[in-house]
Amino acid sequence: MPMREVPDQGLQPMRPAHAGRPDWAALALQYERVRAHTQRLAAPLSAEDACVQSMPDASPAKWHLAHSSWFFETFVLSVHQQGYSPFDVSFRMLFNSYYQQVGARHPRAQRGLLTRPPLAYVMAYRAAVDAQMLALMTGMNARSTVEQAAVAQLIALGLQHEQQHQELLLTDVKHLLSCHPLWPAYASDGLVNASLERAAADLAWQSIEAGVYAIGHGGSGFAFDNEMPRHSVYVQAAQIALRPVSNGEYLRFVLEGGYSQPQWWLSEGWDWCQAQQLSHPWYWRALENSAGAVGWQEFSLHGAVALHVQRPVCHLSYFEADAYARWAGARLPTEMEWEVAMGVYGWPELLLGANPSLHPEPMTGDPGPAIGRVWEWTQSSYAAYPGFRVAEGAVGEYNGKFMVNQYVLRGGSCLTPAGHARLSYRNFFPATARWQMTGLRLARDA
Amino acid sequence: MPMREVPDQGLQPMRPAHAGRPDWAALALQYERVRAHTQRLAAPLSAEDACVQSMPDASPAKWHLAHSSWFFETFVLSVHQQGYSPFDVSFRMLFNSYYQQVGARHPRAQRGLLTRPPLAYVMAYRAAVDAQMLALMTGMNARSTVEQAAVAQLIALGLQHEQQHQELLLTDVKHLLSCHPLWPAYASDGLVNASLERAAADLAWQSIEAGVYAIGHGGSGFAFDNEMPRHSVYVQAAQIALRPVSNGEYLRFVLEGGYSQPQWWLSEGWDWCQAQQLSHPWYWRALENSAGAVGWQEFSLHGAVALHVQRPVCHLSYFEADAYARWAGARLPTEMEWEVAMGVYGWPELLLGANPSLHPEPMTGDPGPAIGRVWEWTQSSYAAYPGFRVAEGAVGEYNGKFMVNQYVLRGGSCLTPAGHARLSYRNFFPATARWQMTGLRLARDA
Amino acid sequence: MPMREVPDQGLQPMRPAHAGRPDWAALALQYERVRAHTQRLAAPLSAEDACVQSMPDASPAKWHLAHSSWFFETFVLSVHQQGYSPFDVSFRMLFNSYYQQVGARHPRAQRGLLTRPPLAYVMAYRAAVDAQMLALMTGMNARSTVEQAAVAQLIALGLQHEQQHQELLLTDVKHLLSCHPLWPAYASDGLVNASLERAAADLAWQSIEAGVYAIGHGGSGFAFDNEMPRHSVYVQAAQIALRPVSNGEYLRFVLEGGYSQPQWWLSEGWDWCQAQQLSHPWYWRALENSAGAVGWQEFSLHGAVALHVQRPVCHLSYFEADAYARWAGARLPTEMEWEVAMGVYGWPELLLGANPSLHPEPMTGDPGPAIGRVWEWTQSSYAAYPGFRVAEGAVGEYNGKFMVNQYVLRGGSCLTPAGHARLSYRNFFPATARWQMTGLRLARDA
Amino acid sequence: MPMREVPDQGLQPMRPAHAGRPDWAALALQYERVRAHTQRLAAPLSAEDACVQSMPDASPAKWHLAHSSWFFETFVLSVHQQGYSPFDVSFRMLFNSYYQQVGARHPRAQRGLLTRPPLAYVMAYRAAVDAQMLALMTGMNARSTVEQAAVAQLIALGLQHEQQHQELLLTDVKHLLSCHPLWPAYASDGLVNASLERAAADLAWQSIEAGVYAIGHGGSGFAFDNEMPRHSVYVQAAQIALRPVSNGEYLRFVLEGGYSQPQWWLSEGWDWCQAQQLSHPWYWRALENSAGAVGWQEFSLHGAVALHVQRPVCHLSYFEADAYARWAGARLPTEMEWEVAMGVYGWPELLLGANPSLHPEPMTGDPGPAIGRVWEWTQSSYAAYPGFRVAEGAVGEYNGKFMVNQYVLRGGSCLTPAGHARLSYRNFFPATARWQMTGLRLARDA
Repeated sequence: MPMREVPDQGLQPMRPAHAGRPDWAALALQYERVRAHTQRLAAPLSAEDACVQSMPDASPAKWHLAHSSWFFETFVLSVHQQGYSPFDVSFRMLFNSYYQQVGARHPRAQRGLLTRPPLAYVMAYRAAVDAQMLALMTGMNARSTVEQAAVAQLIALGLQHEQQHQELLLTDVKHLLSCHPLWPAYASDGLVNASLERAAADLAWQSIEAGVYAIGHGGSGFAFDNEMPRHSVYVQAAQIALRPVSNGEYLRFVLEGGYSQPQWWLSEGWDWCQAQQLSHPWYWRALENSAGAVGWQEFSLHGAVALHVQRPVCHLSYFEADAYARWAGARLPTEMEWEVAMGVYGWPELLLGANPSLHPEPMTGDPGPAIGRVWEWTQSSYAAYPGFRVAEGAVGEYNGKFMVNQYVLRGGSCLTPAGHARLSYRNFFPATARWQMTGLRLARDA
Repeated sequence: MPMREVPDQGLQPMRPAHAGRPDWAALALQYERVRAHTQRLAAPLSAEDACVQSMPDASPAKWHLAHSSWFFETFVLSVHQQGYSPFDVSFRMLFNSYYQQVGARHPRAQRGLLTRPPLAYVMAYRAAVDAQMLALMTGMNARSTVEQAAVAQLIALGLQHEQQHQELLLTDVKHLLSCHPLWPAYASDGLVNASLERAAADLAWQSIEAGVYAIGHGGSGFAFDNEMPRHSVYVQAAQIALRPVSNGEYLRFVLEGGYSQPQWWLSEGWDWCQAQQLSHPWYWRALENSAGAVGWQEFSLHGAVALHVQRPVCHLSYFEADAYARWAGARLPTEMEWEVAMGVYGWPELLLGANPSLHPEPMTGDPGPAIGRVWEWTQSSYAAYPGFRVAEGAVGEYNGKFMVNQYVLRGGSCLTPAGHARLSYRNFFPATARWQMTGLRLARDA
Repeated sequence: MPMREVPDQGLQPMRPAHAGRPDWAALALQYERVRAHTQRLAAPLSAEDACVQSMPDASPAKWHLAHSSWFFETFVLSVHQQGYSPFDVSFRMLFNSYYQQVGARHPRAQRGLLTRPPLAYVMAYRAAVDAQMLALMTGMNARSTVEQAAVAQLIALGLQHEQQHQELLLTDVKHLLSCHPLWPAYASDGLVNASLERAAADLAWQSIEAGVYAIGHGGSGFAFDNEMPRHSVYVQAAQIALRPVSNGEYLRFVLEGGYSQPQWWLSEGWDWCQAQQLSHPWYWRALENSAGAVGWQEFSLHGAVALHVQRPVCHLSYFEADAYARWAGARLPTEMEWEVAMGVYGWPELLLGANPSLHPEPMTGDPGPAIGRVWEWTQSSYAAYPGFRVAEGAVGEYNGKFMVNQYVLRGGSCLTPAGHARLSYRNFFPATARWQMTGLRLARDA
Repeated sequence: MPMREVPDQGLQPMRPAHAGRPDWAALALQYERVRAHTQRLAAPLSAEDACVQSMPDASPAKWHLAHSSWFFETFVLSVHQQGYSPFDVSFRMLFNSYYQQVGARHPRAQRGLLTRPPLAYVMAYRAAVDAQMLALMTGMNARSTVEQAAVAQLIALGLQHEQQHQELLLTDVKHLLSCHPLWPAYASDGLVNASLERAAADLAWQSIEAGVYAIGHGGSGFAFDNEMPRHSVYVQAAQIALRPVSNGEYLRFVLEGGYSQPQWWLSEGWDWCQAQQLSHPWYWRALENSAGAVGWQEFSLHGAVALHVQRPVCHLSYFEADAYARWAGARLPTEMEWEVAMGVYGWPELLLGANPSLHPEPMTGDPGPAIGRVWEWTQSSYAAYPGFRVAEGAVGEYNGKFMVNQYVLRGGSCLTPAGHARLSYRNFFPATARWQMTGLRLARDA
């Protein structure tokens, strides 16, 4: 899931999600489930929690709630529902993220200043859009085949878009709450705070043989345009770890001085690390007890929790992930290596989103490659696949415009909605981003 | 009323506000009235309106509501109510403005990140403090005379402090709402939007004769320490205008190019004006109608209103006020001139705070010097009066620590609570401040 | 001497420097002496030393050399020498400091980028201007009385202006060399590095009686407009020290933790001090020897010298001077107090500029008030005297435009040229300036 | 040639430059030629030109002259010349670029503050190092074979390093002179300012067939480690232009509004372009003549020259190059495509450095691919080749530490010394860099 609004830029599927005549009843059911899930995620938030913006990169929950509805109103209802009258004309500008063809928009860094409309009014907006959308779908069978296909595709896009904002809503709220000196919780229950304090199992490695492979999306399901076209790549022989790096492993890097030794860091990363005076991951803190012993905690959506050594390390920047890998005598994988190696195992559909704890599960004897706990940094700069085509129209207005100075993440996290990610999915963030669920998996030359 | 937290710094009266045995019933009544007024001001605000911080200089309304209660809890209840148990121990840190003797405090620029506690909980805090305070006052007659005097003085301080935050609450909310692209209203009624469009009456001038005068507070009522001691000054012969500069007069400066002519500006003001690309006062905007005619609006607590030429111009920085005065062939008065000249008229107690419209009244045939609509910049740098003494203890911890790079304002505004200001009152802000109700009155050499 | 280019703004004397027919031979002699002194000051500098700009507030020596010549070329030769052909037409723009009436100018912060013209060419420019100026003066007797008076006055102005740049040239070069890690010397000899290490004599205090005094320039000699008009002020009873604060006294403040105790500091000063991580004066450093003992050095125009406890402390910001005074149980004097108290002693003409060491002399048994070693911060904000008038024309284009957010310094320093300063002289800098020869003298209420 | 100090990081060749016993006479000759060329480049500069630093990314010429000598002194003489006594012990710190193993270093952004040592002393330093180096080489035959090989390899490295600084010296001086309002020339002669004003010839395209290719350095000559190992890549079918984009072509993009149309730009590039208010390439300017006609000039090392439509466009950022390619219906090539396609033609050794004009030659009927006029941006992020190994020791201390947020440039420019670049050479800069000789060549899918 790409960063910030980036989600939106890639929503144009290169192949129709629904060939033939869409099953409108099934789509309506899916629509209701996705939309309801967003509201379930927002339910623990007060109007204040949902309004405040803690940094320019993060958006208020209220804005996520409104913008994901704006997407359906702007691209579906306003175009395909005859005589549609907007819920509130000011919303066209207020909740436009960055679509220049749609017109003016409120500045991103000032989304937190929108105390009006109140949260309740935004929830009414959601309800109104939902009613109209369901009415539209009910009557779609009477439309032409062409229009049916187009609308079904837009709705599929809108739902994928909403799922991306579901994860962002959680990471943005997490950042906001972490800025409070008391580290308050988003949700107070559901965390299986396993008491095991032994280190994660030894790393096992999977080998990749040198040769030409095909990567990218080529099947019939939904995919973003940045996953296409499927194409050949030459991959050198290499090895890739069967699980992400754990908190326990990363803690050793911290305790052995990794943040004060320039030799592990990229030059730009070192300068940034020094300027920010970093000494451990975002959301970690060391507490001294009365006996002088230091205990480590990390901030979670459940508030402060003891640092569990078997959980994957999380909220790392690319610079930290890269420095750790070098310290560990390894390196980050390329996204090609990742996709080729993980492809062996198939996609662990059930794991993703099945975690009710909103925090990465400990890694205890996983049989497979332990995908889906944290997004995993790769060393691949985010770039167009050979033959990549920019999509037409406003929904795809800026395909590819984020393809510079960002790095690809793979795999999905414990906050990614079920059914959203896949093997070819390319998330991406700048090298300094730390507020997403970002960890790493090691690789090494054969 | 001093800026931001500055209010707090000057709360130590140099003379007891209540000599002899305090009238506890009267004080309790006054306490209830002031406290209730704060809540009346907050009533139109949603939880979201009350939580967001629009810039570092402004604080959220929720913070004002909590901090003014924290003052009574910290300096009165915790000290003078035996066995007092704090409402919430975290509030000691969260709502401390800058009292180092009280301990740690939440950073000023991050007050808007405190989505917790919610507004309702802060209102409960206010109610609990009020109940304890009233109980305390009820039993005060049984205490020693010394303690009675001390507590009465602290309560008087706390109420003056709360009144300062009442005006700040309004100016801070006004700034927040002005950042919304739709310029929403704080309150939708109460504005007498007089339709008169003729310019304010010609300026009349009052003369001051050269000589030695006494200025500063010397009576028996309450005053902040920065108004004392009363002392002699030599004032040269001068003239001072009988009313502030009007919107109509200032509009001429705008239309005749004042913001693009360096000769009117202080060098630092010109650089600042250019860097900010200013061309008119904060909260003004020019709208073109379909016929191409330009109409001017200003932002008020009632939303956008047509620019009324007879209202005093408001929300000027010192730099703008000073440039206008030079353009008009005059200058800003010194605070000595202001106090000497206005002292002739006595203090117009009734006017202050009697304005229900929360916007400066038009000036139409005022008999007197038209004080109390807007704070008036003087050319006097904020400095200690000769013989100024730093007060003891935490409430006066930092007396005088703001006496650099700020300029004195006199008079009180339409947002100043009734009974709060007086002839010797010294408000002060940096030369770039524009979000307060700040205008100017002209002066010239005799 | 006003700051940076500020010198130029005040060059318009309110009274003619030369009443009656000027003595052209005497003026030419004075011209030659002042001009030659500037070149003597620049003589130790290489072309590289003279070209680089170490911060926006400082100008390269080459620029000072050119700009002071530009002044005579622009305001005297171009106007009063018929058929005058500029030495280089590009200089009109390159070496204009801030005279808008003269036209475009090179940005102040980019003066160090002017590697062209080379230093030698600027010296040729000086010689050419000098030749033309001397020729002009030789023939002036043939001109009308009015023109003679006007030209004589402009030349007097130009020489005062050049003297201001002489001190700035030295302080700017000092700053540049201090940025070099080896602390190289501007001049290697001439410093009387007295070996006395005992503290300066105890402070003696002079009393001022309350009453109305006259301050400001009122005599017949040259003065800048900001010293006028002479006017009455009321001064309260006070005491003022008979010498500036010494290094030894200030060292105690440093060693006893003054830089980490907020109670001594203005709020803005404390924030600035923390942000800059200051722990001692600019140009001081502590060195540990092999035995672990700490010795203090200060940077001088002769390179590093041991900190001499009897020299006046120097290179303090207003914030540091003010904090020290509060720590010492005293305060800064007002400029009125300073002028009234020092006026008793007459002006120590001989001391100023008589110091060949370019570093403040130790204070050992001075009979008088020890003026002229360092500029002394007063608590007075730089403001117009009552009745101050803006001068006409380009040379006085911006009189008064620096009268905000700056503080007045009095007395003159060891770098001030002989004959330049006087009792009524008002130097001024922002509260954070540290690269000038700025110290302090204590005052206290009677 | 990598950016800034980057040059230094890649100096460790993966294969010995000199197998067997080195030919010391030949190496000494090569040493003398390279060193003399550096001094020839510096000859037109005054001491002032050579001292000033115009921005943190650029270094003064004097620093380049000293640092390239420091390299030989630190890594060769201090290690392999017994009893070697440093020319000046302070130079070890002053002229260290970023080698942490060597010790402290002067901050990069403050190199321009080093007015000491003077230029003449740096030239003496060069002469002293050269004398010692030649003496060392003369006696090398007596050393062990192992030491001979090691020293020869270090000298080869040092010479490549010096060549990189030769180009940087010119681009850094060009930037400095461009900051002068008069656009002075570095050298006044040598520019063949062809008068042809017709557009460059139509673009011809070369096809690349899909398949597995080998890229990277694999021969026996010198190469930096970032060019190795030679490895297989899969390249899709594509086409690449036979010459870079010309000024004339780019001018159309400028005139048709390319800088105000977001659709051509990467999102980050658009934001940067807006913030910088760019409307044409760095070093271009539009002049209006008396008849109102606009003529375009560009800044060159010869000062202002008319924009010649057949010269390659130069001094583009990656963002501008990428936007132009999109506007032109094409894209940037990958570095793999570039190397594969250009490899067909062999390396045009004679062209590089043979241009005496220090400005890119017009493209008029080139038979080949017109390489060597400007560095050409590729769309490839600078990353390690598969199997890349970090070198041992200080000279290779930070191999690879710049491999993030930079983009690869290929080909060499008119300022690249003869014999320095090659087909596999990888230069790299951040996407915003504009002061290097950077242009582009178009590519498109087959």
